Amino acid sequence: MLSERPSGVPARAGHTDIRRNNLEVVLRHLWATGPDSRAGLAARAGLTRATVSRLVGELIGLGLVEETGAATARSGHGRPGTELRLAGRHVLAIGAEINVDYLTMLVADLANRQVHRWHRPFDTPRAGAEAALRALAEACAAWLDSLPAAPGSGRDPLVAGLGVAIPGLVDERRGIVGRAPNLGWDGVPVAELLSGLLAARLGDRVGPVTVGNEANRAALAEYRVGSHAGTPHLVYITGDVGIGGGLIVDGRPLLGARGYSGEVGHMLVDPAGPACGCGRRGCWEALVGLQALLAAVGEPPAGAASSSEESVGRVARRAGRGDPAVLAALSRLGEDIGTGCANVAALFDPEVIVLGGYFTAVAPWIMPSARTAYRDRLLAAPGPPAAAGGLAVSALGFSAAARGAATHIIDRVISDPRLLLAPRGG
Amino acid sequence: MLSERPSGVPARAGHTDIRRNNLEVVLRHLWATGPDSRAGLAARAGLTRATVSRLVGELIGLGLVEETGAATARSGHGRPGTELRLAGRHVLAIGAEINVDYLTMLVADLANRQVHRWHRPFDTPRAGAEAALRALAEACAAWLDSLPAAPGSGRDPLVAGLGVAIPGLVDERRGIVGRAPNLGWDGVPVAELLSGLLAARLGDRVGPVTVGNEANRAALAEYRVGSHAGTPHLVYITGDVGIGGGLIVDGRPLLGARGYSGEVGHMLVDPAGPACGCGRRGCWEALVGLQALLAAVGEPPAGAASSSEESVGRVARRAGRGDPAVLAALSRLGEDIGTGCANVAALFDPEVIVLGGYFTAVAPWIMPSARTAYRDRLLAAPGPPAAAGGLAVSALGFSAAARGAATHIIDRVISDPRLLLAPRGG
Repeated sequence: MLSERPSGVPARAGHTDIRRNNLEVVLRHLWATGPDSRAGLAARAGLTRATVSRLVGELIGLGLVEETGAATARSGHGRPGTELRLAGRHVLAIGAEINVDYLTMLVADLANRQVHRWHRPFDTPRAGAEAALRALAEACAAWLDSLPAAPGSGRDPLVAGLGVAIPGLVDERRGIVGRAPNLGWDGVPVAELLSGLLAARLGDRVGPVTVGNEANRAALAEYRVGSHAGTPHLVYITGDVGIGGGLIVDGRPLLGARGYSGEVGHMLVDPAGPACGCGRRGCWEALVGLQALLAAVGEPPAGAASSSEESVGRVARRAGRGDPAVLAALSRLGEDIGTGCANVAALFDPEVIVLGGYFTAVAPWIMPSARTAYRDRLLAAPGPPAAAGGLAVSALGFSAAARGAATHIIDRVISDPRLLLAPRGG
Repeated sequence: MLSERPSGVPARAGHTDIRRNNLEVVLRHLWATGPDSRAGLAARAGLTRATVSRLVGELIGLGLVEETGAATARSGHGRPGTELRLAGRHVLAIGAEINVDYLTMLVADLANRQVHRWHRPFDTPRAGAEAALRALAEACAAWLDSLPAAPGSGRDPLVAGLGVAIPGLVDERRGIVGRAPNLGWDGVPVAELLSGLLAARLGDRVGPVTVGNEANRAALAEYRVGSHAGTPHLVYITGDVGIGGGLIVDGRPLLGARGYSGEVGHMLVDPAGPACGCGRRGCWEALVGLQALLAAVGEPPAGAASSSEESVGRVARRAGRGDPAVLAALSRLGEDIGTGCANVAALFDPEVIVLGGYFTAVAPWIMPSARTAYRDRLLAAPGPPAAAGGLAVSALGFSAAARGAATHIIDRVISDPRLLLAPRGG
């Protein structure tokens, strides 16, 4: 039936969709605004009290909502009602990031509270895809094996899924990494391989595996839990060896036709600029990627001997000591960052561009020149200057992508809580 | 209530929304796939026959659907049913474009068939906003006055609205042109002014006025009636004195936080490039805008003395005669077009980028080098080459923006047919 539907014709809204949508509405209200009564939820969501009572009953049955035992009158809607809150401490989402020189795994509960973090230096290009995925599956198994049966609640833990973030072109629908130049990966079926490794080691204890681009996932983390959470038009730019972009438009990730949107690193900004790892000249990444900064200040390139985090840490320490060559290089870097961000802003008109990854470690020295260059390049628009969209620094640091991968799993559960009832394991 | 809704929390789907949505589903199916029976529509839309019968009844009452009198078995769903078709010949949408050197007005019926076109050279920067809007209101009045009471149907014509497209930053929600550098406009309340002029001249005969950016509206026209209609991820780039971009993402226009997205003209592509009209250096528009081409081949700039269409016509004739200087300039222009389009493609991952405006007039001489440069700059992605998104030439020419402005009105009616019952006149 779907294949018959002509493009541009919206799908019908059937009663199943409404019911699912309304479950999400109730759950997301509790998630976003905290505990409330049935009457308060009904008023806020614009639903009848009878509908809310039915939905809450279903969510309590799924173990996602619980009564606190307290009475609440916070909504100002009639007499105090029994307070409800999210009960998702037992629902866990695993987020992971595979990058050039490290693996990260991060576990969050349904309310997106981080409950576990694991990080390990890893030479991914040398080890290869299968070794990286095996190391991740092992970390996942070790954590699950160490888990008490019922952490902080009377329920058995339920791992809703494992999200993986990768610096490269990802076909999310099929869970395949098309091309990840900095990892040396080409056509790796990550979802299939990782599901197989997890099933062999853990049976059906972990839900489905999803795969996404690291910048897209980091953008989602910024949108859900970052310092600009809830900003509907948000761009996230990650700085590492490669430069990636993640886009939130009207509160939804923009993925593009094949899931390859946001490839800001290879945007041409200067035909006379330095050669890029991609073989071309003038890419933004060749100007503002981490290796360019390290070369400019005479540090060895990041890689197996020195991770991105260690390398940029050395640069930050030199800047902190007032090393004039480093300060000049960082000021120049800021200009190139601001100019490229202005290109991105001209195309998307976001409310904020959040800079993450290694940029956060050198923020004090790049942001002044970045902000000046950004304003200078933006087409002057009416309204107060703040309305033109600002540059901000991520507070999530190098964890943003893994956090976003976990958030992606949580979003799936909140959008369709009955996924938790589905058969597990892929 | 809406202001209380935290960002990122979806709105509930109430029964009014479903009903409106389902009216749209039925209408858009007839619009997109042609006549069908109630049973066929029910099967295609995934609705019950009872629901479809009720919806069709409402649409017949609104005069938007009619029975053809024929029987149809095209759906293969049970016995032949009475054939239904769109009956929107009496529902008219006016689209208009105000550009640097011309005004265009175009009328389409509900099925987006063009029924009238008016075009007039006009020195907008010199005449000013009010004169331009007055000329448009007059053209509108003259056309309405000349209209037979019931063109091609038994019903009185119903003008659902007037959409205006402007080359500049437009606040669509408020109907205000914030800044249109090439028109010399700054903070013009177009919707309010034009509604007033129309009301004074025509009473309530014309529906609400909407205002949008010309490239955004042209993108909508490409998406609805262009040669790539229905392509969910589509970018439209318009070439004139200025270069604008319109974005369709997942079948919906992407407007950005303030409606200022798609400002591709001032994307930095070469810091050593020529000075731009905006006062900066290196903007894409300074390389590929019409004035740059005219200067490169020794033609006088487009403006009051020679419209964009006339000026580019002269260049095309010289190219057609094999003038080597012109051929070299166009080949070089194509390279710069392809390079800039690759930047846009890296950020949005569209299925197609459609080039419109003056580019269409010189397409034979710019497209070979444009396509080569575009492919060279795109990060190589897996899959067949065609999947990387192609460059195409618009078939709508200089009418695309006005066509899109009318399409915008039609889309509003199809999304909510009961708008036709609302009080008229703004």
